[in-house]
Amino acid sequence: MKRFLSLTALVALVVACSSKEQNAPEPTAEPVDALPSWNDTETKSTILEYVQAVTDEGSPSFIPVEDRLVTFDNDGTLWAEKPVYFQLYYALDRISYMAKDHPEWENEEPYASGINKDLHGIAAQGYAGLFELIGATQGGMTTDEYHSQVKAWLDTAVHPTTNRPYTEMVYQPMIELIHYLQDNDFNVYIFSAGGIDFMRVWATEVYGIPKEKVMGSSMKTQFSLEGGAHLEKLDQLDAVRDKEAKPEFIYLVTGGKPVIAGGNSDGDLAMLQYTATNTHPFLNLYVHHTDSVREWAYDRDGHVGRLDAGLDEAVARGWTLIDMKYDWKVIFPNE
Amino acid sequence: MKRFLSLTALVALVVACSSKEQNAPEPTAEPVDALPSWNDTETKSTILEYVQAVTDEGSPSFIPVEDRLVTFDNDGTLWAEKPVYFQLYYALDRISYMAKDHPEWENEEPYASGINKDLHGIAAQGYAGLFELIGATQGGMTTDEYHSQVKAWLDTAVHPTTNRPYTEMVYQPMIELIHYLQDNDFNVYIFSAGGIDFMRVWATEVYGIPKEKVMGSSMKTQFSLEGGAHLEKLDQLDAVRDKEAKPEFIYLVTGGKPVIAGGNSDGDLAMLQYTATNTHPFLNLYVHHTDSVREWAYDRDGHVGRLDAGLDEAVARGWTLIDMKYDWKVIFPNE
Repeated sequence: MKRFLSLTALVALVVACSSKEQNAPEPTAEPVDALPSWNDTETKSTILEYVQAVTDEGSPSFIPVEDRLVTFDNDGTLWAEKPVYFQLYYALDRISYMAKDHPEWENEEPYASGINKDLHGIAAQGYAGLFELIGATQGGMTTDEYHSQVKAWLDTAVHPTTNRPYTEMVYQPMIELIHYLQDNDFNVYIFSAGGIDFMRVWATEVYGIPKEKVMGSSMKTQFSLEGGAHLEKLDQLDAVRDKEAKPEFIYLVTGGKPVIAGGNSDGDLAMLQYTATNTHPFLNLYVHHTDSVREWAYDRDGHVGRLDAGLDEAVARGWTLIDMKYDWKVIFPNE
Repeated sequence: MKRFLSLTALVALVVACSSKEQNAPEPTAEPVDALPSWNDTETKSTILEYVQAVTDEGSPSFIPVEDRLVTFDNDGTLWAEKPVYFQLYYALDRISYMAKDHPEWENEEPYASGINKDLHGIAAQGYAGLFELIGATQGGMTTDEYHSQVKAWLDTAVHPTTNRPYTEMVYQPMIELIHYLQDNDFNVYIFSAGGIDFMRVWATEVYGIPKEKVMGSSMKTQFSLEGGAHLEKLDQLDAVRDKEAKPEFIYLVTGGKPVIAGGNSDGDLAMLQYTATNTHPFLNLYVHHTDSVREWAYDRDGHVGRLDAGLDEAVARGWTLIDMKYDWKVIFPNE
């Protein structure tokens, strides 16, 4: 699998031998901290030791590059999800804009809650309600039109309580982890229950993950030749890819099984259970929202990001719980 | 997009500077023929000139690496599909083996045709009939069990008329094209109407395409915790990804639009029509089966690999027709 050779290693070789030619001094052996935003806790050691073991060809734990599949959830794992999923704020802005043409929405859920900005009323309906609203806001346009609308919204929208752009509500320590894994030839994907088209507008630039490795729930699209060949977005749900649908979609899309999986809610439990059956050494990570000051503290309660059965299983099976308050120096970029 | 840098270029650098250190002679400037199995026809020039133009940073046609998406069909484009889709031979061997437990199949299509090895009776039912047979042969087993069964079959099965292993019924010139494109930082995928799990057993080794870039039609899988977490294959069709479903699935899986698409039948037409809307220069390739001696000659007639509307559109729009008899020195490997 030549195509999977370490880019980093090759670059290092080039740098090494070219600097030698210039009689430049040898690079110092000073180790670089790949995870500077992580405190030196057991969690950080667990991650570093796992990666060192499975990438060392001499180690019995060595994992061939082609098997180094990593799958991370997005909402609550790579970026925040409170008060509610950020994609919902986009949908609500569109719903309010469209409501004047839809008087029937006044008495119809989830539209009524949407128009009244009743976030918990919508969240109470889970991803299904979310995607009905989302469907209403993207049906009947081309995929390019949708991309432009989301991009324009992201350029101006800010989070209701932090006033940060949503793309700065991402977790700096997790971005460092993504790049550290990529630099060690891990094949890093996002498998979120959030909308695939919504994430692909910004995730590549923000996380450094190519859009073909950003996966999520989707609305149906339809190929049409009317007015020139194009893909039209329909208001019909294709699939909500949460819970059991995560390992099923991971298998469809990658044909493989993760060696590292990261999530933060019961919606990610099946993905972690699937990862735990890997014949290679695996690393299951649960981001535990423990910091009520710098972020939000929640787990077993609430409609958004509930971590209940997953928390019990993580403790029982010794999976790695990332304690945001204790393990992370910073939460968001440029803090 | 550092991660997309040319591996080849880096390897070359490493080789170059290490050989320099050893005072080895400079490599000669003799150009290497990247497509040795292709005759020096207009088709070969079209391909070479396109790749040179879009990979030259100084060229107005330059395409950034992250946009170099390539999608190839498989049956009839990368390997042969006559007398019928090879996956059907696998299904028939299984159906015959299972028939004794299914007396009802005697009078039920497509099973009756399957048991009687009436290939054209099955082909007449298109991919739907094919996938009903396929479903019956893979339902109720784990994904790992299915993989092992297909692998075992491939190790011994041979093509009915050529007696070659099916994995040697691939088109050598197309394999060279795949590697030439990969070496020029194109992101090469397979989008076939054939079975995704069936292809992934062998396609990576035979074509050098990672399994997460091998896409096709699929049967449903179901995550289960019974007897340990696993994915179970169901006998229910998930989706036949032919015709309009090809661009729809390309968009779902990659979030992008191909700059190069290759097919051989009307089932690939929508994929090529979608590619033709790319704002970058595009290259649409239709493999035209013109060699009745070395392979099979067919286009507008027949149930397998019909190229009719696609042939008209390719001619009308000046897409590139690959004339197998005229453009290819050899068809299969080790001829």
